[in-house]
Amino acid sequence: MANGGPEIEQLIQLMARLPGLGPRSARRAVLQLIKKKDQLMIPLSAALDRAVAAVCTCEVCGNVDTRSPCSICADPRRAESGMLIVVEDVADLWALERAGVGAVRYHVLGGVLSPLDGVGPDDIAIDGLIARAPEFAEIVLAVNATVEGQTTAHYITDRLAGLNLTITRLAHGVPVGGELDYLDEGTLSQALRARTHI
Amino acid sequence: MANGGPEIEQLIQLMARLPGLGPRSARRAVLQLIKKKDQLMIPLSAALDRAVAAVCTCEVCGNVDTRSPCSICADPRRAESGMLIVVEDVADLWALERAGVGAVRYHVLGGVLSPLDGVGPDDIAIDGLIARAPEFAEIVLAVNATVEGQTTAHYITDRLAGLNLTITRLAHGVPVGGELDYLDEGTLSQALRARTHI
Repeated sequence: MANGGPEIEQLIQLMARLPGLGPRSARRAVLQLIKKKDQLMIPLSAALDRAVAAVCTCEVCGNVDTRSPCSICADPRRAESGMLIVVEDVADLWALERAGVGAVRYHVLGGVLSPLDGVGPDDIAIDGLIARAPEFAEIVLAVNATVEGQTTAHYITDRLAGLNLTITRLAHGVPVGGELDYLDEGTLSQALRARTHI
Repeated sequence: MANGGPEIEQLIQLMARLPGLGPRSARRAVLQLIKKKDQLMIPLSAALDRAVAAVCTCEVCGNVDTRSPCSICADPRRAESGMLIVVEDVADLWALERAGVGAVRYHVLGGVLSPLDGVGPDDIAIDGLIARAPEFAEIVLAVNATVEGQTTAHYITDRLAGLNLTITRLAHGVPVGGELDYLDEGTLSQALRARTHI
């Protein structure tokens, strides 16, 4: 293969390891980078350099940011709601922020309990959560609706018992804009049970 | 949006401009980069820096490489076949090299003639091709089987008339592993006309 030198080949191999890109699309992406060297390749290279230097994990909540405590933990207005949303992953935190859930704080577990995969309570950020919890009035367990997610939610609920806290979870129901026909039975029956007045 | 500082936001926006990545998958890719800082983000940043510094366009054939003339044009064994394959794009050159077409040389047009889009003969590397052509015995016009591609092939054939050259194009036919049922009628009728003895 004469794909233009080891520098290009190595760039393709690294790009191919990004989620959503395979070997073929990584080649196309690299070719695009090379074609748009000034508009895309050089800015991307500079942005990566800056991100490598700046990005760190927040020691309070586990969010990624360029400061620790992160901008969410450092924002005093976010303390007022008294709400702490517990998520599995930083991506979930970003999704909730995009949804504009309000001036809340987060705790990123960095995974879920999974005995089969050898993930126990000490492998995810549960101790940090228990330590922070008394500062808040309500803990929302926004873990995924998977078996592992629900196991983790049960475990956290047990650990938080005794503290005078409201513990909640996200509502199940029909996604906004979703069609009933495509929904699984579990979601539909939960949506019916939790029906609301119009 | 508190997606962790302007450095991260800017990285997401640049990644989203790569082909095959949208805003959502760019965010996922950047999160993966941040999570795998040592194994992925720092190597990718370094590979991009090296590529920015090294990559150039071959002044002979239009290929991208870290040297000019590129490694294909500089390889004396590739002169022996006397075959020059004309392609629209560097991606096509890479695809032919991956297919192992042998010790040939290439000429990258960097586009096709398209009067509607204002692309004329001076906008693509046709003059360079005409200048190089006498060095070769056979010119293979491996342009895409689109209207513009075929227009470009006709134009090049006209320009090369008078030089004592064999001018060929890629065969049309059934893709290897392809199912007849999914092929268009044009391809099928060409494949039947060009049938070969077993």
